[in-house]
Amino acid sequence: MRQTAEQQWKWLLLDALAKEKREQAQQVIEEVYPYDIAQVYEELGEDDQARLLDYLDHERLADVLEELEGEQRLAVLRRLDVERAGHVLDLMENDDVADLLEELGPEETDRLLGSMRTDEALIVRNLLTYPPETAGRLMTNRFIWVGEDFTVGETVEKMRDYIEYSETINYVYVVNQLSELVGVISYRDVILAENTERISDVMETKVIRVAAETDQEEVAQLFERYDLVSLPVVEGDILVGLITVDDALDVLREEANEDIEKLSASGKSIDFETKPWIAATRRLPWLVLLLFIGLVSGSIISQFEETLSKVVALAFFMPMIAGMTGNTGTQSLAVVVRGLITREVDKRVATRLILRELWVGLIIGVICGILIAVIAYVWQGSAVLGLVVGSSLVITLIFGTLAGTIIPLILHRLKIDPAIASGPLITTLNDILSLLVYFGIATAFISRLM
Amino acid sequence: MRQTAEQQWKWLLLDALAKEKREQAQQVIEEVYPYDIAQVYEELGEDDQARLLDYLDHERLADVLEELEGEQRLAVLRRLDVERAGHVLDLMENDDVADLLEELGPEETDRLLGSMRTDEALIVRNLLTYPPETAGRLMTNRFIWVGEDFTVGETVEKMRDYIEYSETINYVYVVNQLSELVGVISYRDVILAENTERISDVMETKVIRVAAETDQEEVAQLFERYDLVSLPVVEGDILVGLITVDDALDVLREEANEDIEKLSASGKSIDFETKPWIAATRRLPWLVLLLFIGLVSGSIISQFEETLSKVVALAFFMPMIAGMTGNTGTQSLAVVVRGLITREVDKRVATRLILRELWVGLIIGVICGILIAVIAYVWQGSAVLGLVVGSSLVITLIFGTLAGTIIPLILHRLKIDPAIASGPLITTLNDILSLLVYFGIATAFISRLM
Repeated sequence: MRQTAEQQWKWLLLDALAKEKREQAQQVIEEVYPYDIAQVYEELGEDDQARLLDYLDHERLADVLEELEGEQRLAVLRRLDVERAGHVLDLMENDDVADLLEELGPEETDRLLGSMRTDEALIVRNLLTYPPETAGRLMTNRFIWVGEDFTVGETVEKMRDYIEYSETINYVYVVNQLSELVGVISYRDVILAENTERISDVMETKVIRVAAETDQEEVAQLFERYDLVSLPVVEGDILVGLITVDDALDVLREEANEDIEKLSASGKSIDFETKPWIAATRRLPWLVLLLFIGLVSGSIISQFEETLSKVVALAFFMPMIAGMTGNTGTQSLAVVVRGLITREVDKRVATRLILRELWVGLIIGVICGILIAVIAYVWQGSAVLGLVVGSSLVITLIFGTLAGTIIPLILHRLKIDPAIASGPLITTLNDILSLLVYFGIATAFISRLM
Repeated sequence: MRQTAEQQWKWLLLDALAKEKREQAQQVIEEVYPYDIAQVYEELGEDDQARLLDYLDHERLADVLEELEGEQRLAVLRRLDVERAGHVLDLMENDDVADLLEELGPEETDRLLGSMRTDEALIVRNLLTYPPETAGRLMTNRFIWVGEDFTVGETVEKMRDYIEYSETINYVYVVNQLSELVGVISYRDVILAENTERISDVMETKVIRVAAETDQEEVAQLFERYDLVSLPVVEGDILVGLITVDDALDVLREEANEDIEKLSASGKSIDFETKPWIAATRRLPWLVLLLFIGLVSGSIISQFEETLSKVVALAFFMPMIAGMTGNTGTQSLAVVVRGLITREVDKRVATRLILRELWVGLIIGVICGILIAVIAYVWQGSAVLGLVVGSSLVITLIFGTLAGTIIPLILHRLKIDPAIASGPLITTLNDILSLLVYFGIATAFISRLM
């Protein structure tokens, strides 16, 4: 049923746009969520897009803009005349405006800020002083705060006055005369309290807060750990803004994507809309790096050219050994990278983890080693070859697992994001390692292999 | 400063546990968040753990249990006598209880459900009838609903009566006489409305909802798209529960971890606490699969044994070509897998994406191909070898990119999770492909290569 209702409004909207029926379009727009309008907008042709933008009032347009992706957002903004752009930016969440302006040149930024209301522009300029991906950049100033000497009745009054501001947040924050955060009270408790009570008597004084320069990943963690719906941002003890849970959701998604991008070395922020040339240039650095590291593997093999030319069958097991070692490293890496996000790692935890992975490597190595030794013996009819391949695999799997564990831990200790280690570092390190071990052992047994 | 305060309470708590000072411990526990107690608990020795459990009252213990990881949670529960376990389970969120019980055998489940209050046990049993990872399993019944004929004043009365229930949720849901969801009102609007107004006159009638059988990933998407803090669950139109945003945060984290596990073939739910033997058995299936697929690569090489034995230098470039092709496939795969989460993909989008990746493959292939051709020529002094290696790389990179794009799209179409494709499927498919292309071209030029 939901599906049908959805198709119906969409059909009505498309029809209204095609026939330039402003009123019909606006009626539909009234009833639909900004996210859905944004989805439709992305599917429209140029003319219909222009018409849709024209039919949206400033407030609706601001909401829709917040739902569009980065590049689409800029494109829309550039289609508006300066005055309208200013009005719309005034109505958008300030953190979204800051994100948007950051992608523009200084001239365009100044022009757009100039078109905004002075107070809103000031707030955005202030947000832009915080580094990207910090708490300061996520915060909004659209929330309600009261002095600690307010009564509950006065608080309700202020809520009435700032009704638009309080739309999605369910707490009133309490500050003292120095603007320092001293407490919080939920709307629920405002409802349940008597109008004459002083807010400082009913508020909760223990408030989880973050400093403005806190990394956004840590911010999202706090939301998860303490099941928050909003989180005040402070400088010293002074309340400067508020982060809402929808931002935490976005951050979680963003950070997970970043981890996956790094683990798969797929390059920064490539989505379905990215142009081929840009996507290619973002991926190329990793690939060129891999190319050169692959050549290192090649030169190792060339060192063992004599061994290889005597027993060509050794080449048959090369991809398997290198692939297995690379993969076991990636497996460990993934566990460590995700684990580091959700918990603190001290020496004790690290040692335990390394020992665990050592055991895992040993178990996996012995099982796979025996398996491949038997297969190699049956396939090539040489017990010595089976022994060489099997023992190589045991050793490389143990080392591979350890490399995948220890390297990200070291990088984490050095304050380098361990996810970056993946694609190139671990996989190819393990590649090189596995070839050295394999051909090393094979060369030692060369007389018996022939 | 926060750091110091943290260390202080922790020190006080550890001290109290060591010296068996029940009151001091309880004073500290009062002041600290459940998450923090859970963190400390995990670090304690057996005796201190037992003492801490003893010092926690039922309610606190329920909160702490919700913050512990799966296996730890079970361990704690098994340490409690049946009666206390029942009390604690009564106080936990029902969806958490259901998750917990599911990991137990039917006998232990029945025993624990038997120790709970009849009404709470019934609700949990009901939750357990929904499949894991659906909306029905995430929902809570701890929220406030009123009939559509209630006045605002009566609503506030009900909120007062169910004060414990309404703790974290900021909306009152409105149902008609058939228990069908007909509206919602925020606490904010309750505050701003007059006590005599009828709730049906002030409520919002447009309520985003999900069916109980909806997949949890879709649930998290709705929270993200519409910036929700809670989401009602319905069967037909009947209101059966509510999902809160903290569950959506957990789902997002969980789903991201699952994607990473699958992309890195690292095996299901391995964290820092997993025992080596369990971690090894979870990873082994992938590795054994990879082993056999690696042998397929090996047997392809063995088909070209003659070519290889004539020009051993061909082996030097094998790891590079296979590695590059595998990696370019994983890059495309990661983009597709993450993209599929955040947007709908119809034929038009899929075609555009495939064309984009074709271009990317072409650009990357040509650049890397030329680079390696020059290097191979300089290193081995053979222009033909350069040509063979370079042209192989162009072809394999294009095919590798396309495979990494098309395969997950097909799997998605067949309702199979595309992330599963990665580790084994894409990487090794590309491995095999690259060897076939490389040795195929080399064999064609063999007379000129020698």
